[in-house]
Amino acid sequence: MATIKIGVLGAAKIAKKNIRGISFADRDIVEITAVGSRSLSKAQEFIQELQPYLKSEVKACGSYEEVLDLPDLHAVYIPLPSSMHATWVRKAAERGLHVLLEKPVATSSSDLAEILSVCKQHGVQLMDGTMWAHNPRAREMEAIIRDKEHFGSVLNVSSSFSFLGGEEFRAGNVRVKASGDPLGCLGDLGWYSVRAALWAFDYELPEYVTVHPGAVFNEEGVPMYLGATLIWPGEPRRRAILTCSFDLPFQQTLDVSGTLGSIYLRDFVIPSEERRSSFMSTSNHKQAFEDLTVRKEHEVLLSKPQETLMWEAFGRAVQNVQQGGLPDPLWIRLAELTQQVVLAIDHSAKIRAAVSVKTLAAHVNF
Amino acid sequence: MATIKIGVLGAAKIAKKNIRGISFADRDIVEITAVGSRSLSKAQEFIQELQPYLKSEVKACGSYEEVLDLPDLHAVYIPLPSSMHATWVRKAAERGLHVLLEKPVATSSSDLAEILSVCKQHGVQLMDGTMWAHNPRAREMEAIIRDKEHFGSVLNVSSSFSFLGGEEFRAGNVRVKASGDPLGCLGDLGWYSVRAALWAFDYELPEYVTVHPGAVFNEEGVPMYLGATLIWPGEPRRRAILTCSFDLPFQQTLDVSGTLGSIYLRDFVIPSEERRSSFMSTSNHKQAFEDLTVRKEHEVLLSKPQETLMWEAFGRAVQNVQQGGLPDPLWIRLAELTQQVVLAIDHSAKIRAAVSVKTLAAHVNF
Repeated sequence: MATIKIGVLGAAKIAKKNIRGISFADRDIVEITAVGSRSLSKAQEFIQELQPYLKSEVKACGSYEEVLDLPDLHAVYIPLPSSMHATWVRKAAERGLHVLLEKPVATSSSDLAEILSVCKQHGVQLMDGTMWAHNPRAREMEAIIRDKEHFGSVLNVSSSFSFLGGEEFRAGNVRVKASGDPLGCLGDLGWYSVRAALWAFDYELPEYVTVHPGAVFNEEGVPMYLGATLIWPGEPRRRAILTCSFDLPFQQTLDVSGTLGSIYLRDFVIPSEERRSSFMSTSNHKQAFEDLTVRKEHEVLLSKPQETLMWEAFGRAVQNVQQGGLPDPLWIRLAELTQQVVLAIDHSAKIRAAVSVKTLAAHVNF
Repeated sequence: MATIKIGVLGAAKIAKKNIRGISFADRDIVEITAVGSRSLSKAQEFIQELQPYLKSEVKACGSYEEVLDLPDLHAVYIPLPSSMHATWVRKAAERGLHVLLEKPVATSSSDLAEILSVCKQHGVQLMDGTMWAHNPRAREMEAIIRDKEHFGSVLNVSSSFSFLGGEEFRAGNVRVKASGDPLGCLGDLGWYSVRAALWAFDYELPEYVTVHPGAVFNEEGVPMYLGATLIWPGEPRRRAILTCSFDLPFQQTLDVSGTLGSIYLRDFVIPSEERRSSFMSTSNHKQAFEDLTVRKEHEVLLSKPQETLMWEAFGRAVQNVQQGGLPDPLWIRLAELTQQVVLAIDHSAKIRAAVSVKTLAAHVNF
């Protein structure tokens, strides 16, 4: 099978990490062949900086269009601001190019609908850039939380993802601009916690989401701090409590509690070590006059960084389509579900009331 | 100095743990001399069950009054339902008996005012039963979070304390009865998280507290699940996010995030091991194209269980008063502050709006 050739749209910081990740990938699966930026010199500088991670000649392009029109390209990586996603996914899909799209996938229900629709129409694979899902640690954790006999039923997820954006970040970064990434910290950071909550509840959609009082928005109305409770249908009540912020110290926590045990980790998005991930599990034991929490560390060794594994998964999915298969519906569905919940939380923040996810999703899920 | 002789009012489950704790205490400081229950046989049975932890003859009393009227008693331990606290603290204080009072200290502002006032009037030591504060681990953590050079400023506290009360618990336990413990999971479990938040912010009172939508109350209006955000005055915004529940799996988490680091633990109320406590700290380091979270485990060895250390601290404070000193104002103040915040959260849950703690505290803090 042919190696999947990737063009990068935009010289974003996150693209550096991904290009480095691709450098560790199996070259029979995926490789970078072009980088486009708003100017040729920016693209050239970017390629120069990443030279240690580029194995073959990479073409510098002075526009995104130029990348899309290259011959022999199979797919694009789109780390552009989310407000540009629908436009560039459309252009890529219309050319039959598969898309790995940074999160948040979309900024509105109509954007999301357009992205899903155009990918479906042109039969291209869509995958969002949620790297942690490709870490084998996720599968190890999944085996534990799905083991009803020992873990019981999942009842609660808590997750926080934040970093302390400095003055410069708050003043000028595209992630706090309504014209760039209007979902702010929710789309950029909360995305991962929402995905984790969906994952923990086996991708069932929550019934309601409700933003906590005290959410903070910048002068453009972009979320800078936001806490939310997600409630799943039925009894006993199943919940997720998420916080995301550009104004809090760097933190990336995930806790999943079942009736009989729990798992937790402090580096769920960006692992502390690239080749060795770990997480903790707890179980409860009776002793003397009360329960005690007993914990255990689980270690997962990685042959490659999680972003490399994401790119290999994407490359294989695209190769499968090249061989006449269909795009893998799982990754498309996960992007869609995550985006639906993110949009519901954003809506709750705007109307300052609980939002029914399914009602909102009805408009999204064409 | 004379050993402080303690009478126990009520054969509560939590009293078992405390009596066991006292059995490891220095006998020159504190000892149990009587247990009173609603019936003599109950008191006798209770003493029988705890025989392995009782070093000398312990008198069984058929009423709480009988305990208070014993000669040679210095102090009482009150694990009675919180609705009875004001009455029994008054009776004890009027007899010059010092009081170790289970949490929550009070069920209302007027109760709290009465308890504080009567203890002050009679010059007796008041201490609440927050054991974790007496674990040397708390001091180790404090040294880290107060170290501005390495930890920065404390910006966020997250804490959850919950257990899964079964059918029987939900139907009949005094902790879910409006006539017994009307503050429910907030008074019983949230108390510890509130104390931890106050501790992390160096006992400064929050400005506002606000309960998250989705709080659950039983048919008597007693909180069964409750999440709250506490906001401290000034910029940058300092917050605590707390959840407490009788309907969630056993969990006892505390995270404190500073601008430069964090500490966290999963057993902050009841340590996993009695004689060896631990906690994690993290610091952030730049690597490749992003921040990484690096963590470190801290181990604290205990000569005695934390509840024993609490009783020795109480015993020493009482001995100091016996020698002509004043009651230690620190423990009284901590009980008061914690109760004020707990009452503000309860008020926020009732009115479903943010509550200014200082306005409310003005009524409490006579």
